[in-house]
Amino acid sequence: MPQAPRKPTILVTNDDGPFSPGLWILYEAVKDLGNVHVVVPETPKSATGLGLTLHKPLRMNKLSYSGRTVYVVSGTPSDVIYVAMNTVVGKPDLVVSGVNIGDNLSVQVILSSGTVGAVLQAAIEGIPGIAFSAAVDEPEEMEEERYREHVLNIVRELTSAVLREGMPRGVDVLNVNFPSVLARDIAVVRAARKRFTTSIVKRRDPRGIPYYWLYGQPVEAEPGTDVHTVLEKGKIAVTPLKLPVSYVESEEVKRIVEEIKGKITW
Amino acid sequence: MPQAPRKPTILVTNDDGPFSPGLWILYEAVKDLGNVHVVVPETPKSATGLGLTLHKPLRMNKLSYSGRTVYVVSGTPSDVIYVAMNTVVGKPDLVVSGVNIGDNLSVQVILSSGTVGAVLQAAIEGIPGIAFSAAVDEPEEMEEERYREHVLNIVRELTSAVLREGMPRGVDVLNVNFPSVLARDIAVVRAARKRFTTSIVKRRDPRGIPYYWLYGQPVEAEPGTDVHTVLEKGKIAVTPLKLPVSYVESEEVKRIVEEIKGKITW
Repeated sequence: MPQAPRKPTILVTNDDGPFSPGLWILYEAVKDLGNVHVVVPETPKSATGLGLTLHKPLRMNKLSYSGRTVYVVSGTPSDVIYVAMNTVVGKPDLVVSGVNIGDNLSVQVILSSGTVGAVLQAAIEGIPGIAFSAAVDEPEEMEEERYREHVLNIVRELTSAVLREGMPRGVDVLNVNFPSVLARDIAVVRAARKRFTTSIVKRRDPRGIPYYWLYGQPVEAEPGTDVHTVLEKGKIAVTPLKLPVSYVESEEVKRIVEEIKGKITW
Repeated sequence: MPQAPRKPTILVTNDDGPFSPGLWILYEAVKDLGNVHVVVPETPKSATGLGLTLHKPLRMNKLSYSGRTVYVVSGTPSDVIYVAMNTVVGKPDLVVSGVNIGDNLSVQVILSSGTVGAVLQAAIEGIPGIAFSAAVDEPEEMEEERYREHVLNIVRELTSAVLREGMPRGVDVLNVNFPSVLARDIAVVRAARKRFTTSIVKRRDPRGIPYYWLYGQPVEAEPGTDVHTVLEKGKIAVTPLKLPVSYVESEEVKRIVEEIKGKITW
């Protein structure tokens, strides 16, 4: 008699914390696809990248939210991966992160994103991951019924495909971004380099002392990139990523190093 | 009469803050190579990766430390890049970061490192950068006279070469790591994938409530990697990096997406 296939273990996480409607859309989409655990940062941790908490301890609490169990960790999304793996989850077969309120488009945003940071951190551990984000401004937009169903269906189909077939060869992470409108198509595209010009604005507090806000203005999107696909064409962008940081074979670097070696007293 | 060449603008930063002896070794090494500005996080920001501060304002203060001017910013190394560029520095020709107390070896560590994060963030803006780290445990080790001179000389030679010749073609960032001993050689090597197994330890506070510490045990270093070069062979490792996140051309991803497109009601 053939054995029933082992149910995959799925870690559901995000960087917006337990009260994000995007988290629960993601949960609904994948809850029947395996043994599903929800472990998230206890407060929003946008733009923490792959940051880790090494200099202070972390807390974890088990909550029930609308009847569903969620563990909250007092750290970053990358902390969540390690705490989850070493406590309630073990090594998952797949990490899904999101659905983020706001897009995570371009290398610039991907590398600072907590949503994508969680799956990149998992990738370092050899665990495949999918990050989902939606180019909406407000949590309420995620909950509009037709939009919610649409996102949920595509999250479920994509996650099912990856669980069934495995993460495609050579790919560590899929970065998926939904437009703010009901999408008309899905495109597999590369990430743009930049999404925003980054500026700061200087203000003065009531005591006259300056403070600074970081902010960005959208840069024009190059066709064929994730930014253009989602924001200009209203399509869903799927960007397959390898674990970042590419070593560059460079004869010039080798030559510079050889020259320096000749100048140093060893 | 030929014009004197324009002096390059150099931004000196780190993730350990203004009191790190490594910062001032770096400053001494490059101070005669251009117009040098020192802008750093006001407190240590290890392991913040490319994290940005978007949800609260930042402060910047000008300090004098042993007669040298240093600006301190209440944010991450990536925040420092943007604040510096938009206030006291303008767009620099080169960013140098470090010298970090502790190595920044392996993809795992590089992506969570604030020291490397600063130069990767600058690379997104098209600015070349060099990150310097030393595999020492204590700040005092950096100040041992022969070690200090040795590090200072190599930092100066490498920075001079990059200023003189430009960053080698195809390279965005150089990640340089010194062993804890006086190095015997420099090698150009790729980054290992991992430096540490990541674990957590559970303890109980005096009230009996659990808390967790993230920590790592070194993994065995593969020959030919940065980890092996610095920690096993006692050489300096220079790792040329491209701006991370590689798009992967994957027919499998395209096929999965085509299948999903057929299942969705658009």
